[in-house]
Amino acid sequence: MADNQLNQIPHRRYNILTGEWVLVSPHRTKRPWQGKQEKLPTLNKPSYDKECYLCPGNVRAGGKTNPNYEDVFSFVNDFSALLPDTEAQSYNEGLLLGEGETGICKVVCFSPDHSLTLPQMEVSEIEKVVLLWQKEYLELGSMNNINHVQIFENKGAIMGCSNPHPHGQIWAQSSVPQEVGKKTIHQKEYWKKHQRSLLGDYLKQELELEERIVAENDHFVALVPYWAVWPYEMIVIPRKHHQDIGQMDGKEKKAFAEMIKTVTTKYDNLFETSFPYSSGIHQRPTEGEEHAEWHFHMSFYPPLLRSATVKKFMVGYEMFANPQRDITAEQAAQTLAQLPTEHYSKMDS
Amino acid sequence: MADNQLNQIPHRRYNILTGEWVLVSPHRTKRPWQGKQEKLPTLNKPSYDKECYLCPGNVRAGGKTNPNYEDVFSFVNDFSALLPDTEAQSYNEGLLLGEGETGICKVVCFSPDHSLTLPQMEVSEIEKVVLLWQKEYLELGSMNNINHVQIFENKGAIMGCSNPHPHGQIWAQSSVPQEVGKKTIHQKEYWKKHQRSLLGDYLKQELELEERIVAENDHFVALVPYWAVWPYEMIVIPRKHHQDIGQMDGKEKKAFAEMIKTVTTKYDNLFETSFPYSSGIHQRPTEGEEHAEWHFHMSFYPPLLRSATVKKFMVGYEMFANPQRDITAEQAAQTLAQLPTEHYSKMDS
Ligand SMILES: O=P(O)(O)O[C@H]1O[C@H](CO)[C@@H](O)[C@H](O)[C@H]1O
Ligand SMILES: O=P(O)(O)O[C@H]1O[C@H](CO)[C@@H](O)[C@H](O)[C@H]1O
Repeated sequence: MADNQLNQIPHRRYNILTGEWVLVSPHRTKRPWQGKQEKLPTLNKPSYDKECYLCPGNVRAGGKTNPNYEDVFSFVNDFSALLPDTEAQSYNEGLLLGEGETGICKVVCFSPDHSLTLPQMEVSEIEKVVLLWQKEYLELGSMNNINHVQIFENKGAIMGCSNPHPHGQIWAQSSVPQEVGKKTIHQKEYWKKHQRSLLGDYLKQELELEERIVAENDHFVALVPYWAVWPYEMIVIPRKHHQDIGQMDGKEKKAFAEMIKTVTTKYDNLFETSFPYSSGIHQRPTEGEEHAEWHFHMSFYPPLLRSATVKKFMVGYEMFANPQRDITAEQAAQTLAQLPTEHYSKMDS
Repeated sequence: MADNQLNQIPHRRYNILTGEWVLVSPHRTKRPWQGKQEKLPTLNKPSYDKECYLCPGNVRAGGKTNPNYEDVFSFVNDFSALLPDTEAQSYNEGLLLGEGETGICKVVCFSPDHSLTLPQMEVSEIEKVVLLWQKEYLELGSMNNINHVQIFENKGAIMGCSNPHPHGQIWAQSSVPQEVGKKTIHQKEYWKKHQRSLLGDYLKQELELEERIVAENDHFVALVPYWAVWPYEMIVIPRKHHQDIGQMDGKEKKAFAEMIKTVTTKYDNLFETSFPYSSGIHQRPTEGEEHAEWHFHMSFYPPLLRSATVKKFMVGYEMFANPQRDITAEQAAQTLAQLPTEHYSKMDS
């Protein structure tokens, strides 16, 4: 990016999907850090933990018993933030505006083996997770009053995950959430103008520039987006313009699983730790519209910045003004691209 | 709020200032918590720490020596995220859009006494902080190329604060940050329609309802906004429609200092700990327009939810979909309103 002088100085970058900006301060990691250090997570977990409410055969907090599942397993969250049986109401009094929200929250166990995480699983095992995501998206999405299905994972205690058993969540609900709404607006605008996918055209440009690409296979590309907020944020984009994950064929599902393994393995290798993140899949809402503009993608938002114990804090300035980052997307991409795709725990042996 | 049935069930609430929504799940704090526990911060700090780069007379990381200041002290951050001497440029190539950003980052020491925090300071001492904020806002705001001045504080290691010496920051910059831009749009819309302050009318409604008010004095009201995102979020609103803090007279400055002491003392008393938060003042941008619509206010975003060691994580769902909270604004306001205004550390003696 020799022709982009911006890269050396503080600047803002525009997120074409959300219409929002991020402040980039390329020189700022030089400052000394005397602040909070996180505790290092350990990789040595047992394969079965009798206290874990997600392990096969165990009794959950809600009183139900898990089946002896052999690959993946999903169930309705015992402490759901959304409930299916609430009546949609609205409350509008002067300047107060509220709306009832119905929905379903599910937990998705990725593996019966308590000790694993996605990067440590086989591609064939991750494929089963992808298959379950597809099934849940299609089933939940076709239900009455479910107009959006959010699939996500919080990995690591630092990301608010309260159980280290490999699992993610799905919150399906009656309204279309804000972040998805923003992305719909900007993709639609571009679609109307060009009859082409915004993210597809962006991917094409990134593949030509080759400055932020981290990994590629036949069907998916992983890169650090130009407008990344989190230090090592990545986005996984399908080469084909699919609106949702339900449209992937067998080969694409396998390639998606492979890419998830590659991305999460590179993350673990970055600081040789079980790398924390929140990941999520953004795709077309399920209120019944075609949404030709939507191009599904999976994003990873990891908090770590300098090492396994020092994270980036999105606080004061970031909360009141703008997200801000201390290394450029190009620096992050270069570092990630160079990392091996074999897990560090296996390279020692 | 007997007439608002929403309060018992999952629902969304609308933020009239930003135009954004928050998902509220009133029943959700019942779930057990096996996740991350924070370390308890300690109140026993020395009044002077020779390792602290903010204490009077000490040498800072950048090599400069602090004066022997006696009340407040501000200086340009040695590791500024924004720099004054960068040339505004822009970069627009296909779908990549970036813009140069110039600015000044300052550190504001609230007291020479390393051991203190705002709630432990005298009102007359906090008044000096308010005075310095006024001065900085007016001085920085009148500079060429400074179109916005963000005053904020990160308190506590959990909020990314790397030094416990009582201090805040000011980031002044050439572009108007996103959060401020959103609030400008919605205040302006209301102003155009009604020729009245949106926040002023909201305050009036809250004072009539008396359901979310935490504290009042002659010139300021502290309340938990209807659309609060953080569990114990508060907003401090001046009764008079001032566009910026530069417009406060002597009595208002004192009342503002008093209210800051009340709010932060209640926070410390909530879990009997030095309560972490990010606070910030939102006010009119300084690009030279009148901004009659703007009504300045100070907000506090504290992360703690259940106790001094368990915080609310804004992760997965919150990042990909919507902010989400587990207790209602009314519950939080009631709890905060009942707390004493004398600091718990003094009540023991
Ligand atoms: O400037 P500090 O105190 O070193 O840093 C802290 O506040 C900044 C402004 O909110 C953030 O960008 C940093 O992530 C945070 O650690
Ligand atoms: O549902 P969990 O894993 O108990 O909770 C975690 O994920 C949720 C969804 O992102 C968040 O609302 C919680 O703050 C977080 O701790």
